[in-house]
Amino acid sequence: ARLDKHMAGLCSVDFPVAVVLPAGGSGERTGLLTPKQFCTFLNRPLISYTIQTFERVPWIQSIVVVVAKESLDLMMDIIHRFHHRNVLVVHGGSTRHRSIFNGVRALSEGEDGTARVKPKVVIIHDAVRPFVEEDFLLKITMAAKEQGAAGAIRPLVSTVIATTLEGYLDHSLERTKYRASEMPQGFIYDVIYQAYQRCSESDFEFGTECLHLALQYCGTNAKLIEGPPTLWKVTYKRDLAAAESIVKETLSQSACVVTGGSAQATELANALQRSMSALDMEVDVISDLIGDNAKSLSKEWNFIQVSVNSSCFCEVGRILGALEEADRALLHPVVIIWVYLNVSEDGSSASEPTGGEPAAMMELATGAKLGNILVYGIQLHHSKEATLWGRSVEKVAQMSCALIRDRSPALTGQLLQA
Amino acid sequence: ARLDKHMAGLCSVDFPVAVVLPAGGSGERTGLLTPKQFCTFLNRPLISYTIQTFERVPWIQSIVVVVAKESLDLMMDIIHRFHHRNVLVVHGGSTRHRSIFNGVRALSEGEDGTARVKPKVVIIHDAVRPFVEEDFLLKITMAAKEQGAAGAIRPLVSTVIATTLEGYLDHSLERTKYRASEMPQGFIYDVIYQAYQRCSESDFEFGTECLHLALQYCGTNAKLIEGPPTLWKVTYKRDLAAAESIVKETLSQSACVVTGGSAQATELANALQRSMSALDMEVDVISDLIGDNAKSLSKEWNFIQVSVNSSCFCEVGRILGALEEADRALLHPVVIIWVYLNVSEDGSSASEPTGGEPAAMMELATGAKLGNILVYGIQLHHSKEATLWGRSVEKVAQMSCALIRDRSPALTGQLLQA
Ligand SMILES: [Mg+2]
Ligand SMILES: [Mg+2]
Repeated sequence: ARLDKHMAGLCSVDFPVAVVLPAGGSGERTGLLTPKQFCTFLNRPLISYTIQTFERVPWIQSIVVVVAKESLDLMMDIIHRFHHRNVLVVHGGSTRHRSIFNGVRALSEGEDGTARVKPKVVIIHDAVRPFVEEDFLLKITMAAKEQGAAGAIRPLVSTVIATTLEGYLDHSLERTKYRASEMPQGFIYDVIYQAYQRCSESDFEFGTECLHLALQYCGTNAKLIEGPPTLWKVTYKRDLAAAESIVKETLSQSACVVTGGSAQATELANALQRSMSALDMEVDVISDLIGDNAKSLSKEWNFIQVSVNSSCFCEVGRILGALEEADRALLHPVVIIWVYLNVSEDGSSASEPTGGEPAAMMELATGAKLGNILVYGIQLHHSKEATLWGRSVEKVAQMSCALIRDRSPALTGQLLQA
Repeated sequence: ARLDKHMAGLCSVDFPVAVVLPAGGSGERTGLLTPKQFCTFLNRPLISYTIQTFERVPWIQSIVVVVAKESLDLMMDIIHRFHHRNVLVVHGGSTRHRSIFNGVRALSEGEDGTARVKPKVVIIHDAVRPFVEEDFLLKITMAAKEQGAAGAIRPLVSTVIATTLEGYLDHSLERTKYRASEMPQGFIYDVIYQAYQRCSESDFEFGTECLHLALQYCGTNAKLIEGPPTLWKVTYKRDLAAAESIVKETLSQSACVVTGGSAQATELANALQRSMSALDMEVDVISDLIGDNAKSLSKEWNFIQVSVNSSCFCEVGRILGALEEADRALLHPVVIIWVYLNVSEDGSSASEPTGGEPAAMMELATGAKLGNILVYGIQLHHSKEATLWGRSVEKVAQMSCALIRDRSPALTGQLLQA
């Protein structure tokens, strides 16, 4: 389905599209010292999530990020660290409109004044709205191409009221007649460029609404399209927590259990699949990561390696090596859970991975964490008693789901008991 | 400072105040099946957090919650489970205004039509805005008393635009002239009561703004007061994550380390205090929970018990018993971390709490979890080598902060290694 949408986008967008991300805000409303676009969750600044969103859209050719002069180095470092491509960094102006105009202008003129091939349509989006979806970008882009301008709207969450100069209620607006103007907005390049060339100093200084400039200076009536709630803007500190939880949820929808092929490991894996699916996690059981199964390495954020009676966790090392080689954890932390199943006929604990194993595991996990891979261990004892066994499996499932969802760096390397 | 504010509130509010919490919404916007006021985080429904906020205000006499008929049993169960007091549950009407009127009317008339002593001022607040603060409620209440009506406002987050019938931009409003109308709102009882008695069927059916009714039917111009961002309304699923993170942060600001008085435990506790304070957690070190120190039991949400070379965790059992007796974990989960310090002169591991201890600890933790107390263990080995020792202490600090902040029920009973 995703591929279909991509194809639909590719076919209909037969003209060049660029995006401008104004990211010069100071973020005074978050209650944090760092401007919100540079605030970090899961080891990565918010703006990098937004850039990634646009990089994934195959029909968008270039991304211009507009940042304050003092953030230029930081921004270049982010682009380098997270391997962003086709991103042009431009320094911002003293107001939102001046910053956007700098970004728009950079799409047709080089810094030295040389001409560039300008896009047909430019999308303007906020760096602090990372969750915009491709199909909505497509709607805005196509409407902009047809109408000259298009913008996202949302229903008003609160009643809007006019106040008297003395701070009393004057009147309230009829909610159904009004909408909140949101981002993204799209423009035919020449429309937004001309609007900025024609607008006044006062517009540059006090205005905030690009759609308004297109109307006033180019006579372009923007098409308004209702967007989904995911367009929402990270504004306050609590929004960062919400954004983190959305990313974590996206990363925690499924896991891949690798069994090594033994009957006992496969039995446990199948039981885990049932238990974890009851906890809303989709689980794929595979015997190894070779051949066709290697696809999981580039698809999945969570791996569970089941080992039976082998106190060596070389299988975990193998997954780790493959993930590191593929740079898989560049953008999001990957979780590997080593489930160690202890089977002893006589009930002794001879094959428990005590002694040197916990220390070796901690060492492995400490190294992996530097590469943004989080390794945890869970040990369980096989039991022939169905109730006991069921309880242990259930416990492994619950702990695995919790480890995957929490992604806590402080707990890596621990060998938990089920 | 808190007490001062309480006293200020008590002195100035020398008239009866009640609150009406409309909670009849169906929550279709959260993307969840449960109406959002009944959605649960940290084991407790959102509406219970809101009720608690009002219960803490000494000058508010009674709380009326208005719920849909199908939620009456659920609401009574919540009140019972979380020991809420002075809460009257009333069933809602078919629209927001009808529900609020039912709540307002219940303050002066019993179900059987008998008269009750009506309050002077009634505050109307949403069940899904749990973080409103006492000093802001005081401002609204005093302004309502003086002006007849008062309401919270916030600056507009987005530009508000008027749309044409065909879905194009008509014009954008000048942002500085308008405000978002939020909750709480306050009214002299007779003003809101009369407004509802006089208003039309159409108002009841389609209106949403109480301030508007007070203006239209009683000629009362509401005083508008800008509120803090904490007034925000839990609307979407992501807002529940944000609310949970706010509550978790509040619960995770400090911890109490209990040493038992031994020199080695005290040394470790002091080192933990330094390390955890660098991780933004304030730590109190005390030797026991007897006498004056027992105050911590009613103040603190997080306890760290340090034990030296004693494989028994009876000290943890003692904290647990005291917390359970005081019903301390009724409203929020309490965390106890057992830090087991292993000191052996010869480097042997003779006194490690292996064998039966992990199983016994799991059992204790499983029982405690039923009472909403989360018990975790961390084991560390003493080292005379300063670098090694420092690293272990740092690890205990990091894991303790993570366990306290995550409050993960799935990981209780585990003995982690530092
Ligand atoms: Mg704009
Ligand atoms: Mg209202």
